[in-house]
Amino acid sequence: MYPELFASRMERVKPSSIREFLAAASQPDVISFGGGFPDPALFPTETLTQVFSQIMKNDGGQALQYTASDGLPSLRKKLAARMKKTAGVSCEANEIFITQGGQQGMDLMAKLLINKDDVIVTERPTFLGGLLAFNAYEPQYKTCGMDNNGMKVDELEDILKNTPKVKFIYTIPDFHNPMGVTMSLERRKKLLELANKYGVMILEDTPYREVRYEGEALPAIKSFDTQNRVVFLGSFSKILSPGMRLGWVAADAAIVEKMVLLKTAADTQCSTLNMFLADRFMEMTDIDEHIGKLRDSYKRKKDFMLQMMQEHFPAGASWTNPEGGLFTWLTLPEYIDSGKIMQERILPEARVIYVPSEGFYPQNPERNHARMNYSCMSEEKIRLGISRMGAILKDYCK
Amino acid sequence: MYPELFASRMERVKPSSIREFLAAASQPDVISFGGGFPDPALFPTETLTQVFSQIMKNDGGQALQYTASDGLPSLRKKLAARMKKTAGVSCEANEIFITQGGQQGMDLMAKLLINKDDVIVTERPTFLGGLLAFNAYEPQYKTCGMDNNGMKVDELEDILKNTPKVKFIYTIPDFHNPMGVTMSLERRKKLLELANKYGVMILEDTPYREVRYEGEALPAIKSFDTQNRVVFLGSFSKILSPGMRLGWVAADAAIVEKMVLLKTAADTQCSTLNMFLADRFMEMTDIDEHIGKLRDSYKRKKDFMLQMMQEHFPAGASWTNPEGGLFTWLTLPEYIDSGKIMQERILPEARVIYVPSEGFYPQNPERNHARMNYSCMSEEKIRLGISRMGAILKDYCK
Repeated sequence: MYPELFASRMERVKPSSIREFLAAASQPDVISFGGGFPDPALFPTETLTQVFSQIMKNDGGQALQYTASDGLPSLRKKLAARMKKTAGVSCEANEIFITQGGQQGMDLMAKLLINKDDVIVTERPTFLGGLLAFNAYEPQYKTCGMDNNGMKVDELEDILKNTPKVKFIYTIPDFHNPMGVTMSLERRKKLLELANKYGVMILEDTPYREVRYEGEALPAIKSFDTQNRVVFLGSFSKILSPGMRLGWVAADAAIVEKMVLLKTAADTQCSTLNMFLADRFMEMTDIDEHIGKLRDSYKRKKDFMLQMMQEHFPAGASWTNPEGGLFTWLTLPEYIDSGKIMQERILPEARVIYVPSEGFYPQNPERNHARMNYSCMSEEKIRLGISRMGAILKDYCK
Repeated sequence: MYPELFASRMERVKPSSIREFLAAASQPDVISFGGGFPDPALFPTETLTQVFSQIMKNDGGQALQYTASDGLPSLRKKLAARMKKTAGVSCEANEIFITQGGQQGMDLMAKLLINKDDVIVTERPTFLGGLLAFNAYEPQYKTCGMDNNGMKVDELEDILKNTPKVKFIYTIPDFHNPMGVTMSLERRKKLLELANKYGVMILEDTPYREVRYEGEALPAIKSFDTQNRVVFLGSFSKILSPGMRLGWVAADAAIVEKMVLLKTAADTQCSTLNMFLADRFMEMTDIDEHIGKLRDSYKRKKDFMLQMMQEHFPAGASWTNPEGGLFTWLTLPEYIDSGKIMQERILPEARVIYVPSEGFYPQNPERNHARMNYSCMSEEKIRLGISRMGAILKDYCK
């Protein structure tokens, strides 16, 4: 290795703090509330086998060949229609392009906009994959506090008023990762108003949007966007399969064109084959019926986990009640370091892991929270994990 | 669109000059020698259908789920073994990671090493996809001349001696894109010696390596690399399917670790599903037998195209005789601009396209060459295209 040859950005590109914990998740006796994985039992393997066989029979030559960098035209068209239905966004196929999962949308957004030391405003806490993507472009961060209605927009205005070189605001409005909370309608509108007023863009990241199992869906921030300020990220990872690595960007056509140039440079295109699979899956089956099954399952598991926490966790602990998505956010008394207690007792004694809060802050991390995932474990394992974890937490929450 | 918000790199990220020509390729009466597409008739659609069905039956939950950012362990292991067999390179699975095609390897190499105005040495001409990937990191270029034995290493030494801030040398040693020529054994060794002497790295890009149909395979430059100077890029695009978007990097384990951090940040991972497909395809069938069919077909077509050029092209034209890969490089008299004559007469009258040479140079382009692809068209279309094109070239080559 020749570190003297490395670009300066590599000082900001470090292994994620959760990597070692997630490695523990592969041990068979460990109960993991750590990952953000969908439940593999719900993958439509049989249907996909039929879809694949049809594709190879009718379109094999195309599906295994190169295609356009912006993605399969029929899939872009379907997603444009779907944006209206699921997010209230009117858009055309040329305002959509296909990405290698939602993660690539974050990378391309930063690549498009960020010079070294430009500012990104994130929520506090925020998705660590977002920070990972952005860090490679050497930004500075400002962070805006959160409550149960999402980003505190008053605090946001203070930031925008006092910070030069802000390029964009990064938000996860629906069933926030890691907090599980949803931004209110009023704040969605206010956020956009502020972006317009201060001349910055918004990155609206919505991987969980369609996995809502309670309450009413709110329109996307993008649906109110009359000045093309919003770049919207969607994903197939939570509604079909993360292993297919498909997401999409919806934005102004001129922005789409620029981002597609960056995508072409970075990896030419997404897998033609997987785009065919998603496209034909949506033609041959009812994806909303499939998503309905996911919603039912995740709601059941969420309710169960919260009930278990209620029964087994000590009085000093509290948690959010998500209306969708995969996570609840556990808050412990401020003097507790969730990473430290996991390493010292919860992993070795209870054989349970979660994601400690430290990694979800670009700076000045709070350490007394934990992201708890409920989508992947059976109810039996949720019961066992939460009860064991609760017994240890009681020693700390005096 | 808010160009005032764009990062400075966007000044270097422009649409490729071949994009408009390749768009013409989709018109049904156009004969395209333009793309670098494998022949879709040779895709193993039936075998893949069986492989897919097996995967869904036995490993569906895993194949549709997230996996490690460095790729499916069993595939990395197979590729490590294959590197010995096909490239003479001894390496372990931890010295391999899976990329979104060869293109992503180029992007990650530049992302790892290039600060604005650092220097990349390329061949002259070079692959335009490489330039596209590198440009986003705002490098300067030095270019090294080529002949039928590849990069002129004497010229290279002059460049390295006189240029500060060179980070790496980019080479396509086997059946060069666009020239079709192969770097000699002696020059491979000399190139590595120079990289060691001047403290720079080498990016060895080998998408066509296994599609050799004449002569003897030469060991990869990486096979002589005792100082971990070489980052080797391999690809499944030409030996299995470009639509699956799978390639790999072979390099020092410490470099692999850094590049995987960048990959995680950029797109999390390659498609688990496609990695399973490639892995199980290699288990359930003999990929070398499959590649043998490609070789036979491409050799036949190459021989046929060169024979047609011999019959129909005027005396002032010459071309390379590739021992593998997908391209021959046509050279016309210096006063001819291959892009201009294509636009003025060859496309409108002969309904033929190729890739004009202009785009293959990072600076000071030569305009009197063309990249001619023979893998994708039938012999009948090759005959028709070359004869029509020859008739027009005769008007120019007096």
